Amino acid sequence: MRVEIWSDIACPWCYVGKARFEQALAAFPHRDRVEVVHRSFELDPHRAKDDVQPVLTMLTAKYGMSQAQAQAGEDDLGAQAAAAGLDYRTRGRDHGNTFDMHRLLHFAKEQGRQSALLDALYRANFAEERSVFTEGDARLVELAAGAGLDADAVRAVLADPAAYADEVRADEREAAQLGANGVPFFVLDRAYGVSGAQPAEVFAQALTQAWGERPPLTLVPAGDGDACGPDGCAVPRD
Amino acid sequence: MRVEIWSDIACPWCYVGKARFEQALAAFPHRDRVEVVHRSFELDPHRAKDDVQPVLTMLTAKYGMSQAQAQAGEDDLGAQAAAAGLDYRTRGRDHGNTFDMHRLLHFAKEQGRQSALLDALYRANFAEERSVFTEGDARLVELAAGAGLDADAVRAVLADPAAYADEVRADEREAAQLGANGVPFFVLDRAYGVSGAQPAEVFAQALTQAWGERPPLTLVPAGDGDACGPDGCAVPRD
Repeated sequence: MRVEIWSDIACPWCYVGKARFEQALAAFPHRDRVEVVHRSFELDPHRAKDDVQPVLTMLTAKYGMSQAQAQAGEDDLGAQAAAAGLDYRTRGRDHGNTFDMHRLLHFAKEQGRQSALLDALYRANFAEERSVFTEGDARLVELAAGAGLDADAVRAVLADPAAYADEVRADEREAAQLGANGVPFFVLDRAYGVSGAQPAEVFAQALTQAWGERPPLTLVPAGDGDACGPDGCAVPRD
Repeated sequence: MRVEIWSDIACPWCYVGKARFEQALAAFPHRDRVEVVHRSFELDPHRAKDDVQPVLTMLTAKYGMSQAQAQAGEDDLGAQAAAAGLDYRTRGRDHGNTFDMHRLLHFAKEQGRQSALLDALYRANFAEERSVFTEGDARLVELAAGAGLDADAVRAVLADPAAYADEVRADEREAAQLGANGVPFFVLDRAYGVSGAQPAEVFAQALTQAWGERPPLTLVPAGDGDACGPDGCAVPRD
């Protein structure tokens, strides 16, 4: 079974939701047969790369919250993160454009390091004092190298704005086609969806349901073509 | 969309079928959204690692063919391979155990080099004078390095018989669960199956059908959990 998870590095519920999903997955009997793929979704795709704001400022400016509401929201997220075993910095975190991070996550996927890089980016963005947005490429190179990627290859991806850009945009188009209006959004074998950072119990139920209710394949066409099997390969037919 | 292809390096129809599928995929309008995964299937899993025979000898000994029948079968395969743009050595090819190659293909998948390694193994087994079975690990290391893998890492995988062995066995169990009796066996988004090296036109039809008939997702549960979207993230609920 394959689980695709649309998320954004700037999305705190994605950070929490990944941990809750992984808790359910760790207890799933068929976990060795579950592949997880992370897909791109930008919450703020039109923000300029150099337009970085403290999150609390962004929340008050963009969504019209009071400072108290914005702080209460961050405190709630901090409590939910803590309950999922995650560190969360409730004050002073930055908000910015995450396109380059998504491009890097596609590169990391090719290298088998996607989940490790996403964990590193989440941790850096939500739990650490240093901003992931204000130190330019150097910070991302450091985080990617820490996740097992080659630093020079990472620099090359970051230096070429077209690298993996189509892959990010295609993920985002596909999210819209699948009906995802927000993230995290989980898709199991392209048959079942889970919207949002649901409790681990919900992910456990979704995994069980998607595993148990897999329909039989429809053969196209109904018959077999030339094939090899326990009785040998097809031989000349006349 | 994801296409999983069960195959064996020792399966000539898999070699031909991969080329036919790729011909259809190259012309498929949504090819950039199709991921291909290669899955393990051994035609002769009980053959000892050091039990290597010329294919023509195996065909007469194992399947009771006459030498003329076996040679005609190879000639037919050679013609089908040529029609698919592939070289094929119709005399003198060896048959042997492919378990180590499947283990390596799982390692290569993690490194994003699976299709390249499979192409290299097919070419070496079906088109080249040298056997892939009689030179021990050195030949596989050479082929894997040529496909972009680190030679020392490949040696380490080959030296540890448990490395990726569970992954190979799990693929084979899954093939049986999906109803595959022979290979190549193609599965599109776990909904549609194509059995055998069908003509490229059949793969084109299957891709179009699987793409066009994707059912809407079933949400589990029906509602959204905590999520972030264009209007911000969930805030305290009271």
